[in-house]
Amino acid sequence: MDIKSFVLQKAREARLGARAIAKVSSEHKNNTLIKMAEALRKRTQELQRENNKDVFAARKKGLSKAMIDRLTLTKQRIEDMAKGLIEVSSLPDPVGEITKMWKRPNGMMVGKMRVPIGVIGIIYESRPNVTADATALCLKSGNAVILRGGSEAINSNRAIVNILRNVAKTEGLHEGVVTFIDIPEREAVLEMLKLEGTIDLIIPRGGEGLIRAVTENSRIPVLKHYKGVCHVFVDRDADFRMAEEICFNAKVQRPGTCNAMETMLVDAKIAGKFLPSMIKRFKAAGVLLKGCQMTRKLDKSLEAAKEEDFYAEYLDKILNIKIVKDIEEAMDHIAKYSSAHSDAIVTKDHERAMRFLREVDSSAVFINASTRLNDGFQFGLGAEMGISTDKIHARGPMGIEELTCTKFIVFGSGQLRT
Amino acid sequence: MDIKSFVLQKAREARLGARAIAKVSSEHKNNTLIKMAEALRKRTQELQRENNKDVFAARKKGLSKAMIDRLTLTKQRIEDMAKGLIEVSSLPDPVGEITKMWKRPNGMMVGKMRVPIGVIGIIYESRPNVTADATALCLKSGNAVILRGGSEAINSNRAIVNILRNVAKTEGLHEGVVTFIDIPEREAVLEMLKLEGTIDLIIPRGGEGLIRAVTENSRIPVLKHYKGVCHVFVDRDADFRMAEEICFNAKVQRPGTCNAMETMLVDAKIAGKFLPSMIKRFKAAGVLLKGCQMTRKLDKSLEAAKEEDFYAEYLDKILNIKIVKDIEEAMDHIAKYSSAHSDAIVTKDHERAMRFLREVDSSAVFINASTRLNDGFQFGLGAEMGISTDKIHARGPMGIEELTCTKFIVFGSGQLRT
Repeated sequence: MDIKSFVLQKAREARLGARAIAKVSSEHKNNTLIKMAEALRKRTQELQRENNKDVFAARKKGLSKAMIDRLTLTKQRIEDMAKGLIEVSSLPDPVGEITKMWKRPNGMMVGKMRVPIGVIGIIYESRPNVTADATALCLKSGNAVILRGGSEAINSNRAIVNILRNVAKTEGLHEGVVTFIDIPEREAVLEMLKLEGTIDLIIPRGGEGLIRAVTENSRIPVLKHYKGVCHVFVDRDADFRMAEEICFNAKVQRPGTCNAMETMLVDAKIAGKFLPSMIKRFKAAGVLLKGCQMTRKLDKSLEAAKEEDFYAEYLDKILNIKIVKDIEEAMDHIAKYSSAHSDAIVTKDHERAMRFLREVDSSAVFINASTRLNDGFQFGLGAEMGISTDKIHARGPMGIEELTCTKFIVFGSGQLRT
Repeated sequence: MDIKSFVLQKAREARLGARAIAKVSSEHKNNTLIKMAEALRKRTQELQRENNKDVFAARKKGLSKAMIDRLTLTKQRIEDMAKGLIEVSSLPDPVGEITKMWKRPNGMMVGKMRVPIGVIGIIYESRPNVTADATALCLKSGNAVILRGGSEAINSNRAIVNILRNVAKTEGLHEGVVTFIDIPEREAVLEMLKLEGTIDLIIPRGGEGLIRAVTENSRIPVLKHYKGVCHVFVDRDADFRMAEEICFNAKVQRPGTCNAMETMLVDAKIAGKFLPSMIKRFKAAGVLLKGCQMTRKLDKSLEAAKEEDFYAEYLDKILNIKIVKDIEEAMDHIAKYSSAHSDAIVTKDHERAMRFLREVDSSAVFINASTRLNDGFQFGLGAEMGISTDKIHARGPMGIEELTCTKFIVFGSGQLRT
C-alpha cells in the first residue's frame, strides 16, 4: 500500500473511533485511563526493551546527548506516564457541559454545549511520553487521537500505543480512539496534513522548525506554540523585595522553559536603587547578564545587549537587562520583542498594574507573580497539551476544555422563523 | 510596486491599526460607528454612482441576473448598511470582559479576559454590503479589518471604504483599522494568505469554490462556512401539528438559505399518518418532493430520491423525504449526510429529545423548533459574521464575541514557581 492510502486508512479508523468515543460515559473513559496506567506499569520491562532499540539506533546515528536523554524511557518516566493517565482520569469531564443558556423573546431557550472536536492529530518529536500524555487528554475530552511521533522513537511509541490500544479494546472502546502512523517516512506527515475533513485539528509539539513546517503545509487548523520570549517589568512603585524574588524566580528556577524570563525591564526612576543587589544575586547564581547602555553605565562589568538579543529565547542562564523611561516604554518594548507568551509587571500602583494587564497582549499577563507560573497545573487546569501562543480557539495552557468545541442547543416548543 | 509588496504594506498598516484600536474605549468605537452610518446615508448618491460603474461592467461581461442583483446597491441596501452599523454600535463591547476568575491554593487569582484577535482578513464575493457589515463587527470587537472584495465590485467597495476610513480619521482613529486591497489581481489574495504573523484570522464569505480555495492556500487560520445540508426528524412521538409547521417553515419560509431543510426524516411508525397531509401542503406550496422507496410506496407520485440527492444543498423548493426505522437510523443518516450545520428533532418524548441533542454533532441542534432559527439575530447575539461550520474557535453564528480571544490574567502578591 502506498503512503497516501496508508495514512488515509489510519485517519478513517480514527474518524470511526471519534464517533464512538464521543458518546462514551465519563466513568467508562476514566476506568479505561486507569487500566491503561496499570498496563504501562505492568509492562515496564517490555517498554524499556523496545525503547533500547531506539536508543541504540540513536547512538549509532550519533544523535546528541540531550536528544538521547529525551528519548530514553527510564522506569521513573514510565511511572510518570502512568501517573499522568490517572491524573487525567480524575479531572472533570468537559463533554456535555452546558456553558450558558438564555431565553429568547419567542420563548425558545438557546444554549451552548461542550462537545468533542473529533479527530486530533499530534505530531511530535523524540519524547515518547507524549504518546501517553496526548492520548489521555484526547480520550478524556471525547476525541480520537492520531499520533505521529519522531522516527527516532518509533519502537518506543509503537510499544506504548499497542498497550493503550489493547486496553481500549478490552475495555470495549473502539480501537480507532488511539491511532498511530507507524511508518517512519516523512511523507506520511505531509499526507496527514492534507486530510482536512477527516482530521479536525493538528497539534505539533516540538521545536520551532517542526512547528513552522507543520503550519506551512497544513490544510487542517493547527494549534501551536512558538517560542517564549518573556518579560518582567519592575515598575517605579515595585516592592523591591518582591520584585527581586519574582525576577530571580522567573530567570533561574528553570531557565530552559518557555515561560522563563529573557529580558528584565526596569523603570529608570528606581534602576539605580534596585539593580545593584539584583545584579549581584544573578551573578552569584551564574547568570550571564547583558545590559542596555544605561544599565552598563551603572555596572560596566556587563556585556552589551545587542538588538538581536532582545528577540532571543535563551532557554539558558542568560538575561538581558534594559532600563526604560516608564511603563509606556516598557509596554512598547514588550509589544515589539515579546513572543506574546508570558509577561509580568511588579508594582504597588493599581492604575499601572491594571493598564499593563489590559494592554499587554500575551497568552498570560501577570501582576506581581512570576512568569514561570504560566502552566496548566499552576493555573488549576490539570494536565495540559502545551501552551498555545495562537489567538484562535485556545491561548495559553491548553487543558482538556481546549480540546472541545461548543455547539448551540435549542429547546423549543414549536418556534418558527417569521 | 509589485503585488506582494503592495499587499504586505496594506497588512502592516492594518497591524498598526489593530494595535491602536485594541485600546480604544467602547464609547469612542460606538460614536465612530454611528458617524459612519450617517456618512453612508449622506453620500448615498456618490455610492450609487460608483456602484453603477460596477453594474455596467458586469452587464457588459454578461454576468448572471442573480449576480448583478447581488452587486447592485439600491437606496434601501445603503440604508440597511447604515442601520447595520448602528445596530452593532448598540451591542455590548466584548473587549475587556473577564469571563471567569478563580483562586489558587497559593492565593493568586487566575482569570480569563477577552481581547481582540488583531487583524482580521475578510475575503468576499460580489455583495458590497459585506464591506460595511464586516468593518462594523471587527471595529466593535477591537480588531482591524483588511478587506478583499470581489473584483466585480471594486468601485463600490472602494467608495464604501473611503467613506468609512474618512470617518475613522476624523474621529481620531488610526486609518489602518479599515484597510482595503484595492487592486483587482487574484494574486493579491494568495499574497494575503501567506501573511501569517501579520494577519491573524481569515474569514472567507461566499460560495464553496472561494472557501475551498482560501482554505487550501492559507497559512493563516481560517473560519469558514461550508454548505448547509439540514435535517428535521419527525419522531414517532411528535405533535403532528407542530411537526408540520416546523417542517414547512424549515423548507418553505426561505429555501435559498443555508439553514433551510433539505431532507425530512420521518419515523416509520407514524409515516403513514403524518405524511399524506404534509406532502399535500408541500405540493400546494410548489415544493418538488423526492422520496425514498418507502415514501414512494405511500405516494407513487413522488420522484425517487437518489443517493447523491441526500448530499445536495438545494437552496431551492426541493425536498428529500426519507422514512427511517427509528431515532437511531435518523441519527445515522444525519451523521452520514448532514453538513453539521442545523438539525432538528420534533418529539414529545424527553429521552429521545435529549439523546438527539447530545449525540447529533452540528453547529446548532434543535428540539421542537425550525432549523431556520440558526442565526445570530434569532439567537440574540446581534449581527453576525456568517455561520461557522468549523469546530475550531467558533461554531454556529459568529457574533462579535467570536471575533475576540481570551488571555489569562493573574493577580498575584509575589507568587513564585517552586
